[in-house]
Amino acid sequence: MARINDNYTKLASGYLFPEIARRTKVWSANHPGVQLMRLGIGNTTEALPMVLVDAMKAKLDKLSSRDTYTGYGDEQGDTPLREALKDFYKKHYGVELLADEFFVSDGAKSDAANIQNLFSEDCIVAVQDPAYPVYVDSNVVGGRSTGFQDGQYKGLVYLEGNSENGFIPLPPKQKVDIIYLCFPNNPTGAVATKEQLKAFVDYARENKAVIIFDAAYSSYIEDEELPRSIYEIEGAKECAIEINSFSKNAGFTGVRLGWTVVPHALVCENSEPDVLRGMWNRRQCTFFNGASNIAQAGGLAALSDEGYKACQGLVDYYKGNARIIKEGLESLGIECIGGKNSPYIWAKCPNGMSSWEFFDFLLDKCHVVVTPGAGFGAAGEGYVRVSSYGHRENVEMAIASIKENMR
Amino acid sequence: MARINDNYTKLASGYLFPEIARRTKVWSANHPGVQLMRLGIGNTTEALPMVLVDAMKAKLDKLSSRDTYTGYGDEQGDTPLREALKDFYKKHYGVELLADEFFVSDGAKSDAANIQNLFSEDCIVAVQDPAYPVYVDSNVVGGRSTGFQDGQYKGLVYLEGNSENGFIPLPPKQKVDIIYLCFPNNPTGAVATKEQLKAFVDYARENKAVIIFDAAYSSYIEDEELPRSIYEIEGAKECAIEINSFSKNAGFTGVRLGWTVVPHALVCENSEPDVLRGMWNRRQCTFFNGASNIAQAGGLAALSDEGYKACQGLVDYYKGNARIIKEGLESLGIECIGGKNSPYIWAKCPNGMSSWEFFDFLLDKCHVVVTPGAGFGAAGEGYVRVSSYGHRENVEMAIASIKENMR
Repeated sequence: MARINDNYTKLASGYLFPEIARRTKVWSANHPGVQLMRLGIGNTTEALPMVLVDAMKAKLDKLSSRDTYTGYGDEQGDTPLREALKDFYKKHYGVELLADEFFVSDGAKSDAANIQNLFSEDCIVAVQDPAYPVYVDSNVVGGRSTGFQDGQYKGLVYLEGNSENGFIPLPPKQKVDIIYLCFPNNPTGAVATKEQLKAFVDYARENKAVIIFDAAYSSYIEDEELPRSIYEIEGAKECAIEINSFSKNAGFTGVRLGWTVVPHALVCENSEPDVLRGMWNRRQCTFFNGASNIAQAGGLAALSDEGYKACQGLVDYYKGNARIIKEGLESLGIECIGGKNSPYIWAKCPNGMSSWEFFDFLLDKCHVVVTPGAGFGAAGEGYVRVSSYGHRENVEMAIASIKENMR
Repeated sequence: MARINDNYTKLASGYLFPEIARRTKVWSANHPGVQLMRLGIGNTTEALPMVLVDAMKAKLDKLSSRDTYTGYGDEQGDTPLREALKDFYKKHYGVELLADEFFVSDGAKSDAANIQNLFSEDCIVAVQDPAYPVYVDSNVVGGRSTGFQDGQYKGLVYLEGNSENGFIPLPPKQKVDIIYLCFPNNPTGAVATKEQLKAFVDYARENKAVIIFDAAYSSYIEDEELPRSIYEIEGAKECAIEINSFSKNAGFTGVRLGWTVVPHALVCENSEPDVLRGMWNRRQCTFFNGASNIAQAGGLAALSDEGYKACQGLVDYYKGNARIIKEGLESLGIECIGGKNSPYIWAKCPNGMSSWEFFDFLLDKCHVVVTPGAGFGAAGEGYVRVSSYGHRENVEMAIASIKENMR
């Protein structure tokens, strides 16, 4: 008699985006004909760069001829793409890695969710609060919580972000085993300095903890002093896994392509160097069959000089939106974090409003949809996340509407 | 101090394909200039149908314009593709399912490996012997074995295939919770009849077990009487999950696209209807971000009348190869299973040779590479798997060489 995996029953129901959809739908039904302006979702809106499209069409041409057709590729990704990623890290971050430390995947979300499987069920996990829900939910499914209570999962350690620490918490005081960090952060847009990251790397090395570093928004960093890879911090190869993606620079949210770095040097309490890298290799070979070869052709083009330039053009476009949002909100006296080296603006709700109160206010008075910060964790209460993903004219209209209706 | 997931240490090292590569390399080094003919790997070799290529290029055109660009899709797959899969099942199998029972994925392998996560760690798992290694390995990682001993994983139940049962075992005598079945089978090419599948469905319903049915080769079935979906068996919706793929009919091994059916009606010991479907939905929304939208455009085209015809043309090509292999081997008095409703021929090693002895013989005397059956499980000893994936002229040369050198 088959029985279900009880860990699924410990998951609180996914509340945030369904509830946004519900409130938006009700409002629209009561206000027929009124167009809403959406700054809620972190989903890309601009066209793929032509150099990437051409590369993917060229791959399709190869696949349409028996002389150049290829089937299964390596589960770890095509060698030229892994080599290009290695060269990219060297050129843009000054970071030296080996090509076989890069594992190409179908996106950062899958890897961010699956990586916990490498670790023992009794490992204690720390997450930033607020946080992207996948880190938390995947660890609940992985058996590392006994249940949801008072807005938090029991057994997890929450590293609280707040206006005092600029939403960049210090390493935990107690011992933890796995630490998820995301910089530039989703949802807050905060970016850790080298010194702040070094504190985590030092903590991890002292405690033989492992850092899972989500760098999916690294291409939004413009300040030269800010680290775009955790491996810019000395010693990080011994204690950190880095996850990244082509979603937010190349516009591959729907095309699906990402990568994870597991260095040979990575260790934990009961593993020598190369053990964790070998385990991730085995995991990918068993549970995955490689990213789409078409997407990989696009990714390779994105790492070329021409492709990189085109992708940075896309990034600059969204950053232009972010600037408009940030300046617009700040002109109203609203405190903002992020929006400079990040596509997200984390805006403090004015007049002591809660996340959902400000959400409702912006919806009802300004016809603008944002994301309530409380949906990303208890420490997100009193904030909303404003996303810069959208057409410029819509962003301008939304900010004009907020300015007009909030003065 | 982070600790590794010990279940990975219970995995026996992946021996089969590395060992084939090693022996082949050594042989080639000793015989410079001699061309080997490869009938070993289940990897497609023929060009993608143009109707699919055109559909994927059209999708790329849409992605290259901001007016038609789309980013993240639904984790469960695009609605038109799920609807088309539903219609396909109705039209070709006479099976009525709902569109929301189809979950589009990046391929059958990922789903076959991940599906065990829905079930409790203490569930007892039965697999066919021989079997595709992913069913076994994913369950070892999932904590359902205490280790590898004498060629088998302790805690798993092996349903032995042999020449008496035509490599289609009966349901287990003891109680098990999860049963993996694959028909047309990889590696044996055997195909269960409706009566044989019904015995498993009856067993599962009686014991509240769940069948994981891998139908990745269903498009190779030509006999009208043979079931191409487990849902052709009455009651299967209550007890079976079906996994399938575009890899082996549309040539999408590298493009990556598959699907899994989890019916609303599916139950197990401690779940009502809709619970397991909801859990898989939650699993996919947490651990996956949808299949590539380019691949999905190709999949939708593959299900159109024109696309279906083109894909069946590909299938017929490989089946032509299978016929040549089967007839060639049988003309030498070698007993074969499969090769008619399947791309695989399961050939009994002549003269009492072991799998590896026959492998070495074919390599050395005929310059043909096959896959030793023992690599798929203890019950595969004494057989080799011959794959029909290859260019026709290579298959013909390989069989001519075997005929010439084995007489």
